[in-house]
Formats: sequence, C-alpha cells, structure tokens
Amino acid sequence: MLGGGFPRSHNIVVMGSFGTGKTTFGLQFLFQGIKEGDKGIFITLEEDEESIIMDGQSFGWDLRPAVEQEQLVIVKLEPTDALSTISRIKSDLPKFIKSFDASRIVIDSVSLLNMLFETEHEKRSNLFALTQMIKETNATCLMTAEVNNKNPNASRDGLVEYTADGVIVLQYEEPKDKGEISLTLRVVKMRRTDHSRRVRPYSISDGGILVHTGAEVF
Amino acid sequence: MLGGGFPRSHNIVVMGSFGTGKTTFGLQFLFQGIKEGDKGIFITLEEDEESIIMDGQSFGWDLRPAVEQEQLVIVKLEPTDALSTISRIKSDLPKFIKSFDASRIVIDSVSLLNMLFETEHEKRSNLFALTQMIKETNATCLMTAEVNNKNPNASRDGLVEYTADGVIVLQYEEPKDKGEISLTLRVVKMRRTDHSRRVRPYSISDGGILVHTGAEVF
Amino acid sequence: MLGGGFPRSHNIVVMGSFGTGKTTFGLQFLFQGIKEGDKGIFITLEEDEESIIMDGQSFGWDLRPAVEQEQLVIVKLEPTDALSTISRIKSDLPKFIKSFDASRIVIDSVSLLNMLFETEHEKRSNLFALTQMIKETNATCLMTAEVNNKNPNASRDGLVEYTADGVIVLQYEEPKDKGEISLTLRVVKMRRTDHSRRVRPYSISDGGILVHTGAEVF
Amino acid sequence: MLGGGFPRSHNIVVMGSFGTGKTTFGLQFLFQGIKEGDKGIFITLEEDEESIIMDGQSFGWDLRPAVEQEQLVIVKLEPTDALSTISRIKSDLPKFIKSFDASRIVIDSVSLLNMLFETEHEKRSNLFALTQMIKETNATCLMTAEVNNKNPNASRDGLVEYTADGVIVLQYEEPKDKGEISLTLRVVKMRRTDHSRRVRPYSISDGGILVHTGAEVF
Amino acid sequence: MLGGGFPRSHNIVVMGSFGTGKTTFGLQFLFQGIKEGDKGIFITLEEDEESIIMDGQSFGWDLRPAVEQEQLVIVKLEPTDALSTISRIKSDLPKFIKSFDASRIVIDSVSLLNMLFETEHEKRSNLFALTQMIKETNATCLMTAEVNNKNPNASRDGLVEYTADGVIVLQYEEPKDKGEISLTLRVVKMRRTDHSRRVRPYSISDGGILVHTGAEVF
Amino acid sequence: MLGGGFPRSHNIVVMGSFGTGKTTFGLQFLFQGIKEGDKGIFITLEEDEESIIMDGQSFGWDLRPAVEQEQLVIVKLEPTDALSTISRIKSDLPKFIKSFDASRIVIDSVSLLNMLFETEHEKRSNLFALTQMIKETNATCLMTAEVNNKNPNASRDGLVEYTADGVIVLQYEEPKDKGEISLTLRVVKMRRTDHSRRVRPYSISDGGILVHTGAEVF
Repeated sequence: MLGGGFPRSHNIVVMGSFGTGKTTFGLQFLFQGIKEGDKGIFITLEEDEESIIMDGQSFGWDLRPAVEQEQLVIVKLEPTDALSTISRIKSDLPKFIKSFDASRIVIDSVSLLNMLFETEHEKRSNLFALTQMIKETNATCLMTAEVNNKNPNASRDGLVEYTADGVIVLQYEEPKDKGEISLTLRVVKMRRTDHSRRVRPYSISDGGILVHTGAEVF
Repeated sequence: MLGGGFPRSHNIVVMGSFGTGKTTFGLQFLFQGIKEGDKGIFITLEEDEESIIMDGQSFGWDLRPAVEQEQLVIVKLEPTDALSTISRIKSDLPKFIKSFDASRIVIDSVSLLNMLFETEHEKRSNLFALTQMIKETNATCLMTAEVNNKNPNASRDGLVEYTADGVIVLQYEEPKDKGEISLTLRVVKMRRTDHSRRVRPYSISDGGILVHTGAEVF
Repeated sequence: MLGGGFPRSHNIVVMGSFGTGKTTFGLQFLFQGIKEGDKGIFITLEEDEESIIMDGQSFGWDLRPAVEQEQLVIVKLEPTDALSTISRIKSDLPKFIKSFDASRIVIDSVSLLNMLFETEHEKRSNLFALTQMIKETNATCLMTAEVNNKNPNASRDGLVEYTADGVIVLQYEEPKDKGEISLTLRVVKMRRTDHSRRVRPYSISDGGILVHTGAEVF
Repeated sequence: MLGGGFPRSHNIVVMGSFGTGKTTFGLQFLFQGIKEGDKGIFITLEEDEESIIMDGQSFGWDLRPAVEQEQLVIVKLEPTDALSTISRIKSDLPKFIKSFDASRIVIDSVSLLNMLFETEHEKRSNLFALTQMIKETNATCLMTAEVNNKNPNASRDGLVEYTADGVIVLQYEEPKDKGEISLTLRVVKMRRTDHSRRVRPYSISDGGILVHTGAEVF
Repeated sequence: MLGGGFPRSHNIVVMGSFGTGKTTFGLQFLFQGIKEGDKGIFITLEEDEESIIMDGQSFGWDLRPAVEQEQLVIVKLEPTDALSTISRIKSDLPKFIKSFDASRIVIDSVSLLNMLFETEHEKRSNLFALTQMIKETNATCLMTAEVNNKNPNASRDGLVEYTADGVIVLQYEEPKDKGEISLTLRVVKMRRTDHSRRVRPYSISDGGILVHTGAEVF
Repeated sequence: MLGGGFPRSHNIVVMGSFGTGKTTFGLQFLFQGIKEGDKGIFITLEEDEESIIMDGQSFGWDLRPAVEQEQLVIVKLEPTDALSTISRIKSDLPKFIKSFDASRIVIDSVSLLNMLFETEHEKRSNLFALTQMIKETNATCLMTAEVNNKNPNASRDGLVEYTADGVIVLQYEEPKDKGEISLTLRVVKMRRTDHSRRVRPYSISDGGILVHTGAEVF
C-alpha cells in the first residue's frame, strides 16, 4: 500500500502532526527505491546527513552504501540562513535535480521550506516553481507537511494539499479509555488511481511504518 | 442529476476539500457536453494539458480527439507567474472565450485563480468581471472551489458561493466506526430551479462520479 | 407572516447562508406590494434585470408589466467598478429613491454593497447614511445579508443586524439521519411588534417561500 | 429585580445579541425613574427621538409628556458623522450631563458609540472618560452592549463588562425540540450587592420585559 | 486555603471572568494582612479609593482606619491618561513601593494595566520590570487578571500566568438544569508548595469569598 | 522513563500549560545528571538563581553544592531588556556553552526566549541557530515550552515541536465529577527510539515528578 506504490511522477504530500512518523515515511519510500536500484534525493531542513542515516539505521535500513555510491544524495538546507538558502533553492538545487536523474525525491518538510519565504506570494511562487520543475524530471516526489494547529485535515500553509496529485493523512487517535494512543493513515486523494478510502491503523516499529491493512480501526 | 442538467448560462460552483473529486466533476461535465457535440473550454491552474487528458482516460473518457479537432481547448494558466498570467486573464482569455463560442466552461480552481491577486479588492473585481464576461457568452460555467479550513460549507474566499447561480457541496463523511470514508453531495443552491435538497452519497470510480440517487445516507 | 406584514418604514434584514432563498424572499416581498398597487425598487449587486425577472417567473410572479409601467425599478449596481458604483450610491441613488416614492425597497445584498468599501469606517458610514435616507422616505426596506462563516447567527459584517428594526434568520437544518435538508425561519427581532419567536420550517417551491406556520420543527 | 433596583451611581451594562430586548430594557429602566419623578437622559445611536417614543408606546409607556416637560431628554448621536459626533461627545455632552442633573442615564448602545473611534486606544480612553464623568454626577448609568460573535458571554469590545459595576446578560435559549425560543437573563456581576446568580426566563410583551422570578428554566 | 496562605514574596495571579469576585479576592487578601498588622498597597485601575472602601464595607471589612493610619494605601491609576499614568508607573510607583515597605500588594487588574501600553513588547517589558521590582521588596503580590474571551484557562494577554509563582482560576459553572450558577476555584500552579489540585466551589457572601473546602462539586 | 533516559545529544521539548510542572521536569532532568557527575546549564528567563535553587530544595534536590563547584551553572536571561539580552544570546552564551562542556542543558522557557524577538523570522532564525549550536556540543538539551491557547497539543509558537528530536506533552485531565484534577504525560515523538505512546498519569510531589508507569488513566 505504501512504499513502491505511487504512480510515477506523482507529487505526493504526507501530512501529519509532529510524532506521526512523516520523516520515517519519507525514508521508507526512498529506501524502497534504493533496494530496487533507483536513484534518490532526500532534501531535509530539519536534520543533518548523519542524523538521517542514523534515523534509517534505527529501522534497519542501511543508507550509507547508497550515499557513498552516490545512488542517494542527502541535501541539507539551512533553515537559518534564509537568503543563501533561497538562492540555493532557486539556482543550484534545480540544476542538481535535473542532472542527477533521481526516480524518487523527498522534501522534509515543505512547511519548513515555506517558512524561508516571508510573504504568502513568495511561498506559493516557490512551491509552484519547485514542484513544476520536479514534475518535468519525471521523478516521483514525496513532501512531508506539518498540519494546521486548528484543523488536522489541513496543512500549515493550506495550499500543498490542493496542488498535490496525492495526499496521505497521518493522525493520532486518542482512545476514550486513555490507554495507548493509536496512529491511523488515510489516503485522501490520489489522482488517476482508484484508491481505497478506508482509515487504516499503522505502527512505527523496528521495520519502519507498518500499515495494518487487514485490521479495522474501532 | 449531474452532467447535462444545469440550466444554460448558469454559473455553478462545486465546492469541496482536496480529494473529493472536484476536478473529476468538472471533466465529467465537459465530457458530457463533448459527447453531445458541444464545444468546451477547460481552464486549469493545477495540471498541464497532458495530465488533464490522462485524468480523463483514467475514467474512460477520451478527450484527445476533441482536443485535436479543437472542440475542446485546455487552457493552462501558470499559478507561478502572476503578472503575465493576470494579463492573460484580463485580455487574451476574454477575447478567446468570446470568439470560441463554447457551451461549457470549467475553471479548476477559482481558488487558485484568486490567489494570483494580492488584495481582497482585486480578487473580487476579477471574479466579478470574469463571471460577467462568461455569462454574456451564454456558456454554462462550472468553477471548482476549495473550502475554508474552518468551515466546510464555505469556500476559501467566502465569496463565490454567494455570487454563483448554483452551489454543489462535496464532502467526506467520517463514519463513527472508522471504516470506509464515504463521500456525499448536496445541491445547496440552484437559482430558477426546484432542486432537491437531499444529501446524496456518491463514489469516484472507473466511470467518473456516480451519484447514488436511490440510496439513503445513514 | 411574511409578505405584507412588516410595519411601515421598518428596516428589515433577512440573513442567511447561500441557498436559503434570500433573493426569493426579497422578490416575494416586492411582488406582494406590486399586487397591492405599491411602487417598488429592487437594488441588486448580484444579477442583472433580466435574471431578476426570470427569477420571479420561476415562482409564477410576472414582474415585467410592473417594470414596463415603471411601478417597479430594478437597479443593477456593478460590484466590479467600485469607484463609479460608489459615486452612484452616494449621489444618483439617493436622488432617485427620494423622487420615486417607493413603498418597498429591497437591497440584495447589503453584504456585497459593503464590499465596495475598503475600510470598516466607510462601510459603516455608508450603511448608516443609506438606511437613514431610506427611512426618511417612509419606505419599508428589506436588505438581504450573508452570514458570518463562523457564526450562522451573525451577518458577514456583524453590524446590520444591530441597526435594523427587524431581523429574520434563514437557516439549514441538517437532520441526523442525513436525509432531506430542511429550511427554518426565525423572526429574531422586530421592533414595536409583539412577534412570535418560534422556529418555523419553510420551503422554496413554485409559489415562492412558504412558511409552514402550522407545522412544528422536530 | 430590574427597574428601580440598581444601586445609585452604579454603572450597569446590559449585554445581549440583537433581538434580546436591550433597548426595551433601557427604556423600562428610564420610565420607572420618570414615574418616580426622576430626571433621565436617553442617549441613542440607533433610532431617532420619534422612534424611541414609539418604542415606549408599544409597551404602554408614554414618554412624550416627560420629553415635553424636559424631565426626559433623548439625545440622538449620529453614528455616520464621526468627527462632529466625537466632538459632541467630548465637549457638549459632558457639559449637558453635568448641568441636567439626571438620576438615570441610558446609552444605547455603547458598542455603536465605540465604533465612532478608530483605534483601540481611543475607544478605551473615551469609554473611561465618559463613565468617569457620569459617575461624578451620581447618576445611575445603564449601557447596552452588543455581544461578541464568538462568545455570547463577552461584549463586542470585550472591555465594558470588566469596568462596569454590574453586568446583566440577556440570551436566547434554543430548546432541543426547536419550538419557541426562550429568553433568559442572568445577573453576572453587581458590585457591593449580594445578588442572585440564578438563570431567569423573561419575556418581552405588552408591558415590557417581564422576568419570571418564580419560574425555573429547564 | 486563601487569605494568609501564600508563600512570602510570591507573585500570585487570580484569573477569572467578570463577576467571579477577583476584586473581592484581592481585598480579602489585603484585609487579612491588615488584621495581622501588615502594611498593604492596593493599586486599582477600575475604581476610586472611596468605592474600594465601600467594596470592603459590603463584606464587613472596615478599611478606613488602616487608610487613615497609612497602614493601607490605595493607589488609583487613571486608565484614561496613558502617558502620565505610564510615567507614574515607571518612576513614582517604584519609588513609593520600595519606600513603603508593604508586605502585601494587590494590582487590580493587571489586564487594565497592560492596556495602557500599545505594543506587545511594551506590555511585556513593563510587566517584567514591575514584578521584578516588587519581588525585590519581598512583598507578596496578588494580581487580578481578566480571562481570554476564547479560553477561560488563559489570561487576556496570555503571559502573566506563565511568569507568576502561583495561579488561581475562578470560574462559573453553568449547571445543566439552568438553575443557580455556581462558582469554582482551582489552584492551578503554586511554586515551591505541595498544593491540592481539587476543584472547589466557593461563594461570595457577606463575609467575602468563602471556599467550601469540605464540599464536592458535582 | 524520564530522568536519564533521553538519547545523547537529543533536543527534547517539554510542552504544557502553566502549572503542569515544566520547570520541575527540567530541574529533575538536570539533578539526575549532576548525581551522575555530569555538568549542566540551566538557562532561565523566569526566575533568578536563588529561586531556582529553592525550587530544587522543595523537591529535596540540593543544587547549591553543584553551583558552588561550578558543576551546574544557572544563567538568568532578563526578559525585560531585549537588546542586551539578545546580544548575550548571540555572542556570550554560545561561547560559554561551547567552552563549558555540559552534558545537559535546560532552557526554561523557549517561549519566553522567543518573545525577545519581534518578528516571526527572527524567532525562527534564533531558535535554529541556538539548537544547532547546542547540538554541535553533543549536550542533550531540554526546552520547556508554553502551549497554544487554543490547542493544547501545540506550542505557543507552533514551531519547536516540529524541529525537536523528542516531544513530551504534559496536560491536565479535568475529570467529569469535578474532583481532583489529574496530570498526564505523553511521549509524542522521540526520534530513533521505539517509545511507548501510552498516556501516563504523573504527580508532582516531594520527590519531584513521579510517573505512574504501572497505572492506567481512566
């Protein structure tokens, strides 16, 4: 249901609150491709290359060989230094993405990326230009997005879920008896596919994100 | 109930969250007209011509012949390049629409169109001018609109639902047992017609949007 | 209960979401007067004269003779062209209203009228001046108003319901079994009258708005 | 419980949505005083003198003799003409209030009065200065206030309920069976008195506001 | 539980909506100290000295001897005249507080005090400086604070509850049967003490605020 | 579960409303390290050094020897004097942190720290720079954060929970019978660990924060 299953050149958004496993989701998507021989790019605004590799290790995915063989490139964008980061996003990054010929690209997170820009207008322009450029490379792109504080079914910026080809929503379920908090996944939108709209429980464990496709959420 | 059933020269808004099938709704409306020999225009700010045609194919609608015979024109407006896009919207597009003599026009989405404009005042002016101009061509116009994050019965801009002749609201229904999420449709407003106000379930499947007019939603 | 029943020279607001029949309400109020030989003015910011006449026809009210005999004047204010429309509102319209000597005036909608003005202060000034001027002509004035997205008991601008002599609220009732959506009407305020505060169901059918005064809403 | 029962020189706020009878409450308070030989001032921003007198008549209170004998003065402040109205509020009105020696003063409504001022700071300054000035005349002052759209227990400006000596909240109660909407009154605050905190139903009928002190609200 | 029970030199906030008895709470705290021979300062932005003394009398606390013997000083800050009041707050008041050597200081209310300042930044600076200065005098300080319109567990400015050593929340409880509204008190925070977190009912009667420590709230 | 159990060089956020024991949580984390011979830094914007030491004493933790032996440094940042404090944060503090070689650093609270900066952009820049710098020293960093008034699962600034490696949420549970308010703790996010997502009750008593890992919350 996850991993390799997105239509080629789709632009997918994985939306969820902190702690729902968005980064893990992106890593798993990329690792799946690496196992199949694909090239991948992981663009991160949160963690450095070493932390990303350690994140993978904690789920049993050894990303280091792929990094060393330049099958996987981890790009760290500094969320601090807005001006120089924006110039990287506008010139170096597009050149690199076009030349590298990746099949899978992850941006973690598009919400932090948007924060680099001051105005609504700049956020939108950049987002449209970046996704357009990636779409032209034919890579499948997965973006993680933080949710709106007041509506867990909307992203922080309220835009990316409308322009994306697919949207997956990760959510907490706080059970009434206040025991274990469960996690649920919904595929809310997936253009050009006949997707299920069931609410699925999932867990984040040793092997990454595991969707309980057989289980029902009560 | 859908498809060919709108009064001629009406301005209809289809409102819904992401993943409710607004684009599919618009395509189906257009394809219905093409089958009946009508001319149509699909104005999109989200996808390019090729993606729109593929969207149609995934529902079994072959739009390519109509495009090749210039019975259907897909107009892609760049949401990135505001200035030149706005000038297209203000001069080329009206000229084209007036000369092409379409019976059906779709704008997908009016929310992204509005985002091209900076101020409330410009958004409104443009919206009023565009709908007025289309109304004068006698074409029936269907606009898709994103919903407000905080109120699923209002559009993102809170305006288009009041100026339109008709409003159709698409919505998720999250059932209490957390199983399959169902989709429901309501015709909330339709000037000069005696329309039903029932809540109808619908599904998005191979053949497009199918409204279960016989079924009850529990 | 509706139609002819408002106290002379009252200023009434009919508030409701899109699709609740506000325009129909205004037309019915005006048509009732025309039948009784009164003169009327319908000021619209939404539809043109022809659409208004067709709206009437769809309910069996033939407004055309009254228009031709200048018993009814339909004034279309362009919501696009703010500057020239504002100047019309400030000079021509008052002159016309004073000279025409109408018994009934409808403004559809005061929310679109307010949008012509940029600042809160201008909106208020204009609203106070206009209603004051109409009050001096002794005409009964009915204004339709859109509701606030977050509170169905408040108008979009949150002002007109306080300054009006009477307020009628139109609302959807979404029944729990998700069947037919019903419409309900409440007279919330009516100065100098002893009005009922019951919630009344109504329907919009061939003959216009029909209030089921005998029925109970469950 | 109402009428004559407020402590002398208290500043009372009557808060409620439109249609809850705030103006009637103020008139009744004033009429009660007139019957007892007191002098009163009714400052209105909503209606003109004639409408106020007619409001009173509809409840059986003949205010005209008191107006003619200058026992009651109705001051109409124009909400339109901000500059000249503000200058009246700042110079003429204080002089008049000090010289007239009224026992009871009503301001209907303090929310419209506040709207004359552009900034938060000016609203507050004026409100503090006006209430201070009235307090020095030893008159009991009753101000009506519109409620906040999102919180029926707060005034539109969220200030006057904190600075007042007493606050009375008028509210709708929408019963579950959707029948008659009832009105309830609560004395939420009354400095230096031992007041009841019961929720009381009331009705607005021929004789004005009638609080059903014996009844229980279910 | 109330009165004398706060740790010395603590900074306590009493938060509540209008009519919950915040001023009474502050007076009772001060009167308790006066009975024990302590010196006290009551800084008010709402009422004048005479009203404060009368407030006390209505609960049976005679504050006048303490005022005459300069054991209690009531400082009235004008909320109208921002500039001169701010200069008092920044120079005279600190000098006075340092020299007077009070054991107990009440500020009623910190929300009105904050309103004197225009920007968020000035509000915070002043609040930090004032509380720091009082802390250095070793006086126990009680500030009353108005609550946020949308969240009864937050103060109007959303700051003072985080910087204070202790927070007491006063609240209405609207019972389901719509009878008597009850008042409840919670000690939410009290640094360096092991405080109870029970919800306690209280009443405001002849003798001031009486917490029903034995009773349960149902 | 608490204390020593965080992965080295993690950046942890402890989020909660006032009175949930955030400061105590931070002190306990630091005291645990001191007992194990680690060096620690406590950066506070709320209380002075003496109050922090007294806070510790009230839980039986004697911090004074550690302070005297320079094993623990308490840094007081003035929230009042923004300019000089910001310059300390940008130059002195980084130098000190790098040279002191602490294993554990607490910032109490990051919300007050953020308030020193005027714009969103400055808040973010500073936060990113500070956490990056601390991460490079390999110290484990615990930041306390105030919650958003409208969403208890989000921090006041809505950022820190996304950039942190771990998030712990402290919350009140208001039981239906209005008795004792209980406190609950959830580990919502903890990168590179397989953490429990159970809701745990805890209490703040003599010995600090005690998590009832065996108990269930009903």
